[in-house]
Amino acid sequence: MININENFLNLQDSYLFSTIAKKVAEFQKNNPDKKVIKLGIGDVTRPIVPAILDAMHKAVEELGNQDTFRGYGPEQGYEFLREKIVEFDYKKRGVNVSIDEIFVSDGAKCDCGNIGDILGIDNVVAITDPVYPVYLDTNVMMGRSGKYNEETGMFENIIYMPVTSENNFVPEFPEKVPDIIYLCLPNNPTGTTLTKEQLEKWVEYARKNKALILFDGAYEAYISEENIPHSIYEIEGAKEVAIEFKSFSKNAGFTGVRCAYTVVPKELKGYTKSGEEVSINSLWNRRHGTKFNGVSYPVQKAAEAVYSADGQKQIKENIEYYMNNAKIIKEGLQEAGFTVYGGVNAPYIWLKVPDGMTSWEFFDKLLKDVNVVGTPGVGFGPSGEGYFRLTAFGTKENTIEAINRIKNMK
Amino acid sequence: MININENFLNLQDSYLFSTIAKKVAEFQKNNPDKKVIKLGIGDVTRPIVPAILDAMHKAVEELGNQDTFRGYGPEQGYEFLREKIVEFDYKKRGVNVSIDEIFVSDGAKCDCGNIGDILGIDNVVAITDPVYPVYLDTNVMMGRSGKYNEETGMFENIIYMPVTSENNFVPEFPEKVPDIIYLCLPNNPTGTTLTKEQLEKWVEYARKNKALILFDGAYEAYISEENIPHSIYEIEGAKEVAIEFKSFSKNAGFTGVRCAYTVVPKELKGYTKSGEEVSINSLWNRRHGTKFNGVSYPVQKAAEAVYSADGQKQIKENIEYYMNNAKIIKEGLQEAGFTVYGGVNAPYIWLKVPDGMTSWEFFDKLLKDVNVVGTPGVGFGPSGEGYFRLTAFGTKENTIEAINRIKNMK
Repeated sequence: MININENFLNLQDSYLFSTIAKKVAEFQKNNPDKKVIKLGIGDVTRPIVPAILDAMHKAVEELGNQDTFRGYGPEQGYEFLREKIVEFDYKKRGVNVSIDEIFVSDGAKCDCGNIGDILGIDNVVAITDPVYPVYLDTNVMMGRSGKYNEETGMFENIIYMPVTSENNFVPEFPEKVPDIIYLCLPNNPTGTTLTKEQLEKWVEYARKNKALILFDGAYEAYISEENIPHSIYEIEGAKEVAIEFKSFSKNAGFTGVRCAYTVVPKELKGYTKSGEEVSINSLWNRRHGTKFNGVSYPVQKAAEAVYSADGQKQIKENIEYYMNNAKIIKEGLQEAGFTVYGGVNAPYIWLKVPDGMTSWEFFDKLLKDVNVVGTPGVGFGPSGEGYFRLTAFGTKENTIEAINRIKNMK
Repeated sequence: MININENFLNLQDSYLFSTIAKKVAEFQKNNPDKKVIKLGIGDVTRPIVPAILDAMHKAVEELGNQDTFRGYGPEQGYEFLREKIVEFDYKKRGVNVSIDEIFVSDGAKCDCGNIGDILGIDNVVAITDPVYPVYLDTNVMMGRSGKYNEETGMFENIIYMPVTSENNFVPEFPEKVPDIIYLCLPNNPTGTTLTKEQLEKWVEYARKNKALILFDGAYEAYISEENIPHSIYEIEGAKEVAIEFKSFSKNAGFTGVRCAYTVVPKELKGYTKSGEEVSINSLWNRRHGTKFNGVSYPVQKAAEAVYSADGQKQIKENIEYYMNNAKIIKEGLQEAGFTVYGGVNAPYIWLKVPDGMTSWEFFDKLLKDVNVVGTPGVGFGPSGEGYFRLTAFGTKENTIEAINRIKNMK
């Protein structure tokens, strides 16, 4: 008889974005004359830049020619791309990563989820609260969460590390020591990040406890301040305890193109229950080779072009465009009297909703009064209650208009 | 402390293709003047056809334009592609499949592996022997295999269904009733397939035992004979027991482009240990939405073009090219006195190695005497011993030359 994986039954349905979509559709139906501006979505909107487009076209052309056609590529990614990653994302920052520590994939979301395949079920997982839901849900699916507690809004075996204005959005070491720690920096949804000194403490903590840090650096390109690590491997010893997830989605607009990579250092060891050391790099290499078949060739050529001189210049313009939006939102909201976080090293602005309102009530008010759509903070976890996320991924014109409307809101 | 998934330690290293590569490299080094012809590889070699290239170029262009740019698409795939799949691969064959039963992905290999996520660990798995190694390895990783037995070359909890010339490569119902049955038809590596009546018996068996058939139809486009089902859903009742994996790799040459799809019917139910019914479609939808982020947009447009009139005509020419190679191999080997299977409904030719030789000995002889590379059958499982795989994916010229050499082999 077909047995299902019953851990799936512990999953909580996330109605966040579907509820938002429903509310917006209903409002628009009842108010067809109102222009709704959406600053809720975490997806890029600027087109792919010319240097990258050219590379993709050329690669497509190669596939149509008998002499240059390519079939299966290496599951880990072509060397032409992995060499660029090693050179530009690591060596240039003084970090030594080798080609066989880089695994190219079709998305950081996939990798963040799939990494659980090689880890034991009994590991205790710590996540920040609020958090990108994929970290939590994929652990629920694998049986690491235990049951959901309706009252607390939390799973019984998951360690939640609250990040709120009270701790300046810096996660604190939890009472119970976790085996696996998810850190997303710069952070989605709060837009905040850690300095080198703050991150060093986490690396030290992980080393002391032989814990694994799963470091999601998807928003690295948005870092504008000094002393913020662009890679966790800028911290000494991090290669012994951290896996780093990187993506071309947010720096080069690849959300629809699909390319990412994961770094699994050879220094990183896991343990059997009897205490034997096992190379995590070898495990992931085997997993990646068995359950994945490489990224589309034109997509890998597109990713390679991200590192070209023209590519770098052109994607920088898009990032600046988004970060200018972030500045408009942040400064506008501050002028309007809101308490605002993020928006300096990340395309997300995290604001405190006015006193006495829940984040959903603020959502409704913003939609009804000024026709602006954002994301209620509670959708990212119980400690997100009382907060609200706006994103910098809209057009400049819409962003300015949305903020002007909010400024004039009663 | 970081605990690893210790099931990975049960995996057997597959040295099949690396051993082949090593032997060939060594031979070539010692015999630089010899022209080695490779008929071992399961990868296509014909370039992508013009109709598909055009669609890809257009889609790349769209990504570079503000008005037509697309970011995240639906995880399940764009409707424009799923509609074509429903229409051409199912409705035209009299099979009723709905759009929300289709899940577009980046590869059938990934789906065949990932499907295990939603299934319980205690399910008993049956595979044919020989078999495509991914079915086995992914179950070993999840803990469904038990330990490997060095003597038998088999895992203790896996049911092996031998397919050899003795049963005409038709798997028989095993003594112990499995919960999950992998069927790859047309088959890799044996190249054989089942008639409608034969497949009906398997569907009936699965229905009777509430077992799940994981039906890999990656080679469907190569079916040339009547009365061979192109989809398991041509069998009445199959939607209650079968998941079907399809790929654009072998029909349209997408091994480097990366697109596939999986059909999970809504009629298909799994069970909790306490006997409650759960929709497998809902579970897979949740898994796909959480651990996957959709296929690259230009790739989905390329896949859509497979179904255009020009696309269909052009890919048919490539399939005919390969199947003409298959005919050359099959007839040539028969003339040379070999016993040969497959090659009629599949691009694989499965031959019996001459008496008294192992499949590795035959590999060595073929390489040394006539400089032709194939794949030893034992690499696909213990019952593959004594067999050898040649593929039709080479050029016509090389295929003719290889067969002529084998014909003249002493």
